[in-house]
Amino acid sequence: MTIRLTPLTVSDHLSRLRAEPPLVQCLTNAVVTNFTANVLLALGAAPAMTDIPGEAGPFARVASAVLINLGTPHADQRTAMLEAAEAANAAGTPWVLDPVAVGSLPVRTALAAELLALRPTAVRANASEIMALAGLGSGGRGVDATDNPEDALPAASLLAAKYGCIVAVSGATDVITDGTDTLRLSNGTSLLTKVTGGGCALGAVTAAFLAVAGDAGPDGGGLVAAAAATAAYTVAAEHAAVSASGPGSFAPIFLDTLWHLDAELVAERLAAA
Amino acid sequence: MTIRLTPLTVSDHLSRLRAEPPLVQCLTNAVVTNFTANVLLALGAAPAMTDIPGEAGPFARVASAVLINLGTPHADQRTAMLEAAEAANAAGTPWVLDPVAVGSLPVRTALAAELLALRPTAVRANASEIMALAGLGSGGRGVDATDNPEDALPAASLLAAKYGCIVAVSGATDVITDGTDTLRLSNGTSLLTKVTGGGCALGAVTAAFLAVAGDAGPDGGGLVAAAAATAAYTVAAEHAAVSASGPGSFAPIFLDTLWHLDAELVAERLAAA
Amino acid sequence: MTIRLTPLTVSDHLSRLRAEPPLVQCLTNAVVTNFTANVLLALGAAPAMTDIPGEAGPFARVASAVLINLGTPHADQRTAMLEAAEAANAAGTPWVLDPVAVGSLPVRTALAAELLALRPTAVRANASEIMALAGLGSGGRGVDATDNPEDALPAASLLAAKYGCIVAVSGATDVITDGTDTLRLSNGTSLLTKVTGGGCALGAVTAAFLAVAGDAGPDGGGLVAAAAATAAYTVAAEHAAVSASGPGSFAPIFLDTLWHLDAELVAERLAAA
Repeated sequence: MTIRLTPLTVSDHLSRLRAEPPLVQCLTNAVVTNFTANVLLALGAAPAMTDIPGEAGPFARVASAVLINLGTPHADQRTAMLEAAEAANAAGTPWVLDPVAVGSLPVRTALAAELLALRPTAVRANASEIMALAGLGSGGRGVDATDNPEDALPAASLLAAKYGCIVAVSGATDVITDGTDTLRLSNGTSLLTKVTGGGCALGAVTAAFLAVAGDAGPDGGGLVAAAAATAAYTVAAEHAAVSASGPGSFAPIFLDTLWHLDAELVAERLAAA
Repeated sequence: MTIRLTPLTVSDHLSRLRAEPPLVQCLTNAVVTNFTANVLLALGAAPAMTDIPGEAGPFARVASAVLINLGTPHADQRTAMLEAAEAANAAGTPWVLDPVAVGSLPVRTALAAELLALRPTAVRANASEIMALAGLGSGGRGVDATDNPEDALPAASLLAAKYGCIVAVSGATDVITDGTDTLRLSNGTSLLTKVTGGGCALGAVTAAFLAVAGDAGPDGGGLVAAAAATAAYTVAAEHAAVSASGPGSFAPIFLDTLWHLDAELVAERLAAA
Repeated sequence: MTIRLTPLTVSDHLSRLRAEPPLVQCLTNAVVTNFTANVLLALGAAPAMTDIPGEAGPFARVASAVLINLGTPHADQRTAMLEAAEAANAAGTPWVLDPVAVGSLPVRTALAAELLALRPTAVRANASEIMALAGLGSGGRGVDATDNPEDALPAASLLAAKYGCIVAVSGATDVITDGTDTLRLSNGTSLLTKVTGGGCALGAVTAAFLAVAGDAGPDGGGLVAAAAATAAYTVAAEHAAVSASGPGSFAPIFLDTLWHLDAELVAERLAAA
């Protein structure tokens, strides 16, 4: 039986999230930390950016989900990231790895390998990063994806099988796989790539959705929750783009759209396969 | 004689602030530093985010007021915070402590105790944080207040008496006390809790208003200035919420409203007791 | 022959930038990193905020241009800045120094001298900072310019001659010099000083324009490119201010205006001498 993503599944996740807002701990980069917190708040989740050694671990034990994003991984934050990942594992807290610009940059590439070995619940990245993470490419240049999500599917499947994680590859068509089943989503707008953090914030939303994953079993539930996160995020972005005059006006309209996102808008726009 | 907050007092503080913009040094968290600076600029103050060891102290000696916010207290910043608090004390510069998420998180809780012992001019926080700071509660979860400002009044009064500071407890009704007199303000909007930094920026505005406190004596002047800061901030927020479509559009409208905030709008909306 | 800046030259730089987006590495302060990235994206460039030791150098070797901004120079970032400047020099990558609040603050003032000795391609700052950098003034208070760009021309010329760099002094009238030729630009809006990062982001835009500098020779090309950056930035800001209601609405409108900035708008508004 093939897993499919329906509008109802997306709305159900959204309703659960708003009924009991998950506390999403984000250890993320300095550039996008503000936007990421605002995206989580607009969606209905509760962000907390606790990322220092000695606090990141204790917090991960009480958080509903954790995001670890490698965009600007200063020494203290690297220590805190490993602490948080281990605590999340000990507590059974789902956590998401976003290996920003992994590949050619030595510090984060070594850290990404260490974190991957701790088996994140999900990895969210662009195609170039997924290929680099699987050792099948050199990474892009910074956050720019120079490859196509579909081309990264072999790398994504390899990672999913080896580390038992969901892999969400973001792009014009998003590809999300657990190594067995693969979902494809075609919503979104190119304006998301013209606002810094457009991809990074989706990592945090993925963590929030994993925190309210349904009971289709640990694996199936995770795959669907990760896909539902991408769906909610990209449907809202696509809708927001209609009334935006450029990337400046897009950001606040996008936040307002996440705030008002409901079953009707999801049903109207969702393009899932 | 009971101290009361009148619209005229709020406008007078605002006029003084704009006539001679106070230089407000902020040692604050990475998530809200941008929004905080923009709030101060929109209000008419001059922000400076000088927060490294070796500079934080010298700067605090020339600043008009200092904010110390514990949201993401990395090791270097903790050193800089103690340096700034001591220099502010030496120079007679008013300073505000915002003990974000104090209680269960060990690093910041220890730091908050150390800073409190240096006797800040004012403490601004939500009810859960004030109760945790006074040893009467466990703190909330992150920046979420799970308690009511009125319930935190005993804790606030205890802190005010013990450390000789103003304590401003933010919530649906804000409670501001110096341990003897207590002011209550009922302006605001729940959208302030849906934009990251909605509370943190008020700490900076409180510092700015303390810098232009009137001459009702060091204590009475400080209490009124702290209350006037909350009043100006929440009146502007309440007014901005009327034309906002969600948290995304609220933030820029709020900044514009602070920019245009005048005696008329304050008089029209102020709800003080 | 006097170098002049024509609307066509500005548009040509803009066209080259959009045809082949330069990868602009920014080592900048925590307050403005988000706004800076969004300004670069809106303009059509590709930002990357790689600023940790061990990565800043390798990245500077592949980047199209580098910005080093001293707003919040934590210890690790200082190491990364020197690493990036040396790598940029080795690779022939243009780089811009923005010596925020240099003068009275000891850590950044020492660092600025070290970086200046590495001979940046361009220095962008306000008048007070340029005078302090040249040893002819005490610096302002934080990012506030208390001096006039024209008054800083002797200091700017001295720096340009001594270090072989372009010096761009921002203010009501911007003064840009290579020590021999001097260009003056009178576009802009005071709202740029009411949004945090209004000056800092121009440093990043200057780096982006240097990356696509024309072939008028290394020096002439750099001077014109730096002036074209200021022109594009301030023309867009001036136009955006017309429809803004305050600093809150100005920021997104400014980003949208950069996104749509074209030859026609540049020709309509450019005030260069």
